[in-house]
Amino acid sequence: MGNNFFRRDDRDVHFVLKEHLNVERILGFEKYADFTMDDFDMVLDLAKTIAENEIAPTFQDTDREDAARFENGKAYAPRCFHHLWDVFRESGLFALSQNPEFGGQGLPLVIAEAATEFFMSANFAFGTYSGMGPGQGEMIENFGSEKQKELFCQKLYDGTWGGAMALTEPDVGSDAHMVIAKAVKDGDYYRITGSKVFITSGDHDLTDNIIHLILARIEGAPQGAKGVSLFAVPKIWVNEDGSLAEHNDVHCVGIEHKMGLHGSATCQMSYGDDGKCLGHLIGEPGMGLAYMFQMVNVARMAVGLETAAFGANIYANVREYADQRVQGTRYGDKSGKRVRLLEHPDIRRMLLTIKALQEGVRALVYSGYLMEDIANASDSEEERKLAKKKLDFFTPIIKGYSSERIWDICTMGIQLLGGYGYTSEYPVEQYARDCKIFSIWDGTTYIQAMDLLGRKLKGGEGEAYVAWIQEIQEFISSKKTIEEISRDLALLEEAVADIKSLVQLYNKSREDDNDLVPLTATAFLDCCGEVAVAYLLLQQADIALQKVEGLSEDHLDYQFYMGKVATAQFFARNFLPAIKGRMRAVEVGDLTAATVNEEWI
Amino acid sequence: MGNNFFRRDDRDVHFVLKEHLNVERILGFEKYADFTMDDFDMVLDLAKTIAENEIAPTFQDTDREDAARFENGKAYAPRCFHHLWDVFRESGLFALSQNPEFGGQGLPLVIAEAATEFFMSANFAFGTYSGMGPGQGEMIENFGSEKQKELFCQKLYDGTWGGAMALTEPDVGSDAHMVIAKAVKDGDYYRITGSKVFITSGDHDLTDNIIHLILARIEGAPQGAKGVSLFAVPKIWVNEDGSLAEHNDVHCVGIEHKMGLHGSATCQMSYGDDGKCLGHLIGEPGMGLAYMFQMVNVARMAVGLETAAFGANIYANVREYADQRVQGTRYGDKSGKRVRLLEHPDIRRMLLTIKALQEGVRALVYSGYLMEDIANASDSEEERKLAKKKLDFFTPIIKGYSSERIWDICTMGIQLLGGYGYTSEYPVEQYARDCKIFSIWDGTTYIQAMDLLGRKLKGGEGEAYVAWIQEIQEFISSKKTIEEISRDLALLEEAVADIKSLVQLYNKSREDDNDLVPLTATAFLDCCGEVAVAYLLLQQADIALQKVEGLSEDHLDYQFYMGKVATAQFFARNFLPAIKGRMRAVEVGDLTAATVNEEWI
Repeated sequence: MGNNFFRRDDRDVHFVLKEHLNVERILGFEKYADFTMDDFDMVLDLAKTIAENEIAPTFQDTDREDAARFENGKAYAPRCFHHLWDVFRESGLFALSQNPEFGGQGLPLVIAEAATEFFMSANFAFGTYSGMGPGQGEMIENFGSEKQKELFCQKLYDGTWGGAMALTEPDVGSDAHMVIAKAVKDGDYYRITGSKVFITSGDHDLTDNIIHLILARIEGAPQGAKGVSLFAVPKIWVNEDGSLAEHNDVHCVGIEHKMGLHGSATCQMSYGDDGKCLGHLIGEPGMGLAYMFQMVNVARMAVGLETAAFGANIYANVREYADQRVQGTRYGDKSGKRVRLLEHPDIRRMLLTIKALQEGVRALVYSGYLMEDIANASDSEEERKLAKKKLDFFTPIIKGYSSERIWDICTMGIQLLGGYGYTSEYPVEQYARDCKIFSIWDGTTYIQAMDLLGRKLKGGEGEAYVAWIQEIQEFISSKKTIEEISRDLALLEEAVADIKSLVQLYNKSREDDNDLVPLTATAFLDCCGEVAVAYLLLQQADIALQKVEGLSEDHLDYQFYMGKVATAQFFARNFLPAIKGRMRAVEVGDLTAATVNEEWI
Repeated sequence: MGNNFFRRDDRDVHFVLKEHLNVERILGFEKYADFTMDDFDMVLDLAKTIAENEIAPTFQDTDREDAARFENGKAYAPRCFHHLWDVFRESGLFALSQNPEFGGQGLPLVIAEAATEFFMSANFAFGTYSGMGPGQGEMIENFGSEKQKELFCQKLYDGTWGGAMALTEPDVGSDAHMVIAKAVKDGDYYRITGSKVFITSGDHDLTDNIIHLILARIEGAPQGAKGVSLFAVPKIWVNEDGSLAEHNDVHCVGIEHKMGLHGSATCQMSYGDDGKCLGHLIGEPGMGLAYMFQMVNVARMAVGLETAAFGANIYANVREYADQRVQGTRYGDKSGKRVRLLEHPDIRRMLLTIKALQEGVRALVYSGYLMEDIANASDSEEERKLAKKKLDFFTPIIKGYSSERIWDICTMGIQLLGGYGYTSEYPVEQYARDCKIFSIWDGTTYIQAMDLLGRKLKGGEGEAYVAWIQEIQEFISSKKTIEEISRDLALLEEAVADIKSLVQLYNKSREDDNDLVPLTATAFLDCCGEVAVAYLLLQQADIALQKVEGLSEDHLDYQFYMGKVATAQFFARNFLPAIKGRMRAVEVGDLTAATVNEEWI
């Protein structure tokens, strides 16, 4: 069995939930009135225990000798995941936030996802199976008929069956509206034919059945997005009474050989090879893409959670190494005395970078989930609407920024471990391989950036953008006399001004009808991510400075809070100034890449 | 058998050698008087052919089913490397630059390494065996006795035996002066005991014998660097007549499970378990580290070459994909027409970034090798001395900057390929895994940065640094009226001023006795690398603008030269402005990471 690398703690999770975001307020919503904070703690404790003791031991095994495999026309999950599946069923851990009517736990999303973060730290590959059923079930619950809900939801929520989201086609990729798969009406159902690729857990042996939600085009439907519909296609057909019928002509053709996530079966799927694949139409014809985007947004937010999850455990592992490994003499010390890595300024710079990024992303994604809870459950309609707009605004920032930063975290983590970082004696190289898909799946970073700069920003007039900038400026005004962070707030103010200038440059570029927007969109998204994280970390520093009063210096809380202050200062002072450089490059306004003759490159 | 991903061409190699660096001038040195440019072309053509047809087909196999392995106390190279070894022996490709007296080809280094670049593009793992023997042989030739040269050099140069460089010990890592391995005099030889880790090709089955150059401490030697000596330890003892005697108590204990370079056997070695390991002292006692640094510098330069090699083939592969893959509609086009990836501004931004970095690093490392040739062979002593100083100055920049940029190139290459980039259908994810060690081995990026900022820069007074800045400024002055690059030269001028300001900030920091130097050294190295690359690319643009005159627009040379101009413009306008951001962060002068209480993080 591989090493158990689970080292992370839960202090920051509890801090963000209770001290920073005050999730207690959602107990005031009628939907969550029956919960207490103690209930939430129990869920978080259980999740951490199961992550550490049950899931984490599988981390290395599923990367190597117990990876997902394809044999004789079937895909198989890692053998060790069968045990984890049982554990999840016994503890009811599949559908933490889903509707109790169908067996979900009905928890607020922000709590459910905080619990899920522990699972993701332990071995994210398991989540690529366990998370799919509830996700697909929720789509059916939201858009399906009563009969469809009755047939599928409970079994998708309790782990009886698995789920898969079949969107991508070989020659279609990111152009989801170009779907080629076909659906022909056949009585109450549709006969489906088509090929899909990169289907996460499209086939495996953890459950007797897998329900595929697939996009296809009904015969005679219009071209483009409006002709795409959503279908539920069970691997094994389900009789009206819920019992299993025959194999539904759904075939796994192979699995991908990937850089990482070897425990996850990424399937090439073929539907209806023998013309016998039946599916249920979900909701209205032509609404498939709109429905699917609900799921895509869930997956985009999850990238932020995955980043916080990987980052927390990477930090804990490399922090421990830096504390134990003796190497080199401290800068400026001529005595030749060797010190622990932790004493070197450059090592601390890397540690603080990892700490700031993983904690910053956690605050960012948890605040996103809280927005979603408010949007779903607030008793005020106005609050619900604004929360939904904010969530829409932050989703591309969370997805795009986090997916790039987890790669940076891994890069730095490997570097910090030296030669050992390049080996499987430490977990970081595997996290690096596991995470590289995050910046690609569910919309590449560029797609996120263009979503942000277009639909969400609306030339600087977008409601959520305006509210965000205003909120930061008010925070700066009200806190700038606090000595410990006044310098940092000044840097944040500069950075906000830079963002606003960039938005003006983009408006000018649109008037000039040039390509500055697509050429620098990803850099702009990074700037927004950095401002968002700096703002949240400085909020945390402000809170920490209040909490620290009266604590003795050797109190663990004192150390935690002072760490929060240092982390915010470090991030503001080292990351925000870099926005100046990106800004300068946009000002230079180089269009070479767009205008260069393609034969020249 | 795996895919042959060899797609790169040799146009830029020939451009840099002949049109940019004018290597023809070294034919004027007496040492190289017998060569012609045609000889060089023949070597380059042969290398490219062998790389493409013999080495490249092994790339994927040695990552997977034919990786290096450890069985029953022995390490084995990939099976397919036995054939390549024969090919190299037949064509005399092992020791291209080494002394013909012992069977080397005696080529100038810049030509030998340009040829080696093709091998590295094809499958670098093979080079981790083939390059070691000649490297160790050269050490023995430079520092060993006549008898030692006679025993070892020829066989290390012609591939009869392999070599290994045994420097690192488990608890010593980067602190090479802390070597623990022991040597006790025993007649004409020394009895060696010790453990070494991360020994590249420390054991394998490609040759009957492997000569280990190892660092050890002679009984009674002083503490620290001055007590370290260099020994040649054959795996099989060599009799005075050159015949093989008995096994020399040299044992491979295991090999590392690495992120990449699976074809390379990275060995844990044990010497003298039974007290029977004999070694030859090489050169003077106490000189081991000084000698070893010759080899370390060779390895550091090689990182630049590896970057150019990987980068060229990554560029060719992703450029081809971008040209073939249809995906999305072009920004600003409302017709919905799908276009090739190559038509998207963001894709072209990534392509030009990869092109600029790989070509810039090639120019940088080739100019380094040319400096070395001049330092070795110029008939003017003054020129030799200055070239040596320049080489010393650029070595940490080449090593540090290249090793970080090849990771960026891989990151961008994977992103550009989308989901396919995460799979082994394309070579980039393997290049990423293969290259991650470059920023760690032979001195981490931080070690390079501190070498640059300390020993090499000398507070801005270092001769080579002063000469470099002056050379760039003269270039800017003499070229600034050239319209196509005047804007870029102005940006370069700004960046040079920023570098000079940074050096002043560091001098101030030393006076203040604070930690700004170690905290920002790696950022400073990056700035120097970017200025160095921008300068070289703008030199190339200047040359290209001259060559393009009179060529018709559909001439391949016209397109190549215009690509050079666009690449330089793109790099100057998109990379140099970012220096402003790094500069601003150094100005802010945050010392949090150094001063924060370690219990707080």
